[in-house]
Amino acid sequence: MIDGPYLLFLGDAPDALAAKVAQGIRDWRPDAAIGQFRMAGCRADMGLPDMTLAEAAAAGARTLVVGVANRGGTISPAWIEVLRSAMEHGLDLASGLHNLLRDELELTATAMATGRKLHDVRVPDVRYPIANGKRRAGKRCLAVGTDCSVGKMYTALAMDREMRARGMKATFRATGQTGILVTGAGVPLDAVIADFMAGSIEWLTPDNDPDHWDLIEGQGSLFHASYSGVTLALIHGGQPDALVLCHEPTRKHLRGLPDYPLPSLEALRDLSLTMARMVNPAAYVAGISINTAGLAEREAEDYLASVETLMGLPTVDPFRNGAARLVDALK
Amino acid sequence: MIDGPYLLFLGDAPDALAAKVAQGIRDWRPDAAIGQFRMAGCRADMGLPDMTLAEAAAAGARTLVVGVANRGGTISPAWIEVLRSAMEHGLDLASGLHNLLRDELELTATAMATGRKLHDVRVPDVRYPIANGKRRAGKRCLAVGTDCSVGKMYTALAMDREMRARGMKATFRATGQTGILVTGAGVPLDAVIADFMAGSIEWLTPDNDPDHWDLIEGQGSLFHASYSGVTLALIHGGQPDALVLCHEPTRKHLRGLPDYPLPSLEALRDLSLTMARMVNPAAYVAGISINTAGLAEREAEDYLASVETLMGLPTVDPFRNGAARLVDALK
Repeated sequence: MIDGPYLLFLGDAPDALAAKVAQGIRDWRPDAAIGQFRMAGCRADMGLPDMTLAEAAAAGARTLVVGVANRGGTISPAWIEVLRSAMEHGLDLASGLHNLLRDELELTATAMATGRKLHDVRVPDVRYPIANGKRRAGKRCLAVGTDCSVGKMYTALAMDREMRARGMKATFRATGQTGILVTGAGVPLDAVIADFMAGSIEWLTPDNDPDHWDLIEGQGSLFHASYSGVTLALIHGGQPDALVLCHEPTRKHLRGLPDYPLPSLEALRDLSLTMARMVNPAAYVAGISINTAGLAEREAEDYLASVETLMGLPTVDPFRNGAARLVDALK
Repeated sequence: MIDGPYLLFLGDAPDALAAKVAQGIRDWRPDAAIGQFRMAGCRADMGLPDMTLAEAAAAGARTLVVGVANRGGTISPAWIEVLRSAMEHGLDLASGLHNLLRDELELTATAMATGRKLHDVRVPDVRYPIANGKRRAGKRCLAVGTDCSVGKMYTALAMDREMRARGMKATFRATGQTGILVTGAGVPLDAVIADFMAGSIEWLTPDNDPDHWDLIEGQGSLFHASYSGVTLALIHGGQPDALVLCHEPTRKHLRGLPDYPLPSLEALRDLSLTMARMVNPAAYVAGISINTAGLAEREAEDYLASVETLMGLPTVDPFRNGAARLVDALK
């Protein structure tokens, strides 16, 4: 568990996209971040108060979260200097970078000297069990996609927020680095050892109250040759009651696979149900979530209406329309 | 790559089953093992010459292979003594045990002092790529099962042997610990990090001659909640042209999952083809391999005939009938 509140480190982000982890935290846990730290040349801005490390510590920040991707796959000396100083000011560090904080000798030395924690959320810190397939109490909803990066995390977070606003019992269950930094806990599924993937998701979504919903962050796609195994482990470990189909209509081919067209929503529905019903015979598709960021407003409305007619399921863009109709569709 | 020939270490195996790794090597690479080493109380026997370490070294053995499961999950002091002595006699060590050789201080110290290698085939020693889904030259055949442990490795090895006996170009591609020890190389897929599973299989089965066949060892089952993600990564990374369906007819439920019945062969066929055709539209089912060890001879014959009629595909038990009809069915 990562202690909050956070100071968001934006480093020398060349643009807003490089700081998308910070943006995720800002969007979904606005209460969690009390300030931002920007270095010279930073072109990202979360609209939070700019703070020095001393100011952040004085304001109660407990953890500096690296909210920006690093360029060239290395943690630069300029970053190291800030990160070390943050620990000297009493802050833990958390990061989802491929380069681990713990692999930087200067950071581990400072962490030892100051007693601060280094959270590398990209690597698991739990010994997960092998999945046992037993049915668990409580309800689970999983977002599945025609492709990677089509809005599965956004959809689950939007449903979680809507459900909690209604006073329902709900927990967003993070399975990726950004989700873990947003919520402070979760399973970094893409870094789990193959034999323990499904078990890690059983561990993440344990027995709960009968009226409690886990909103499980999806990963990959059953149709994506690079990551389909991760997706299937998520379905079989998560035992979802409800599925939400996610799609991005302007995508020309599967992400990173130029020779692979996207599957249809019908194919996604059928295959996802086949897989989910192996572990939960009552699994159903609750609705459809479309990322219409690439469409004009009128186009988006038309597209959503046409999908809703075609598929006979509530169809929304949670960013434009909210997730209320998806939540209404849960049984 | 593990250097041969081997000395098979049977330790203090309480019964033949405990030495099934040694049995696999004995069955499939009879030329690879020149002797066996048995300790007091050993109840397994591969029918190989019993040798001291000095005799094995003199006879040209290059690697002592741990061919027996350890009791209680620890490597006993008595074993350690033999393993150290083997290195002092000039042999490398290879093991598929969960307890790694490299985690035993006495073994690593001796390995350093003698310059010998410790091969822990349970853990990957390669940085695998992320799968790119690109079509590769050459042909690939993958065994898929209604369950775990239904004869997938045996089937692939039997086909490989048959094909090489016919002078065809064929390579068995190991994806599990026993298969790796049998062939001396492979990918320990169940220990690979989630994101790299499919990529490890692409790496294992690279471009080859157009008339060359990779016989890929299957793992798990698409229907098995604990391991299905591993199986799907194998299908999507392996891009099989031909599938062989594997089944064990006396199995009451999925291995380790008492609440889960076995799927039908029709369901296995349909789902496996759906998955395989995402990456290789020409994928087909070549035949069916049934492990009839639990049936009497007449029962087995009747069962094979009834499955062949029902499914319209060549159906054999490779142990009883050989794999010739499966090889004949490859296009």
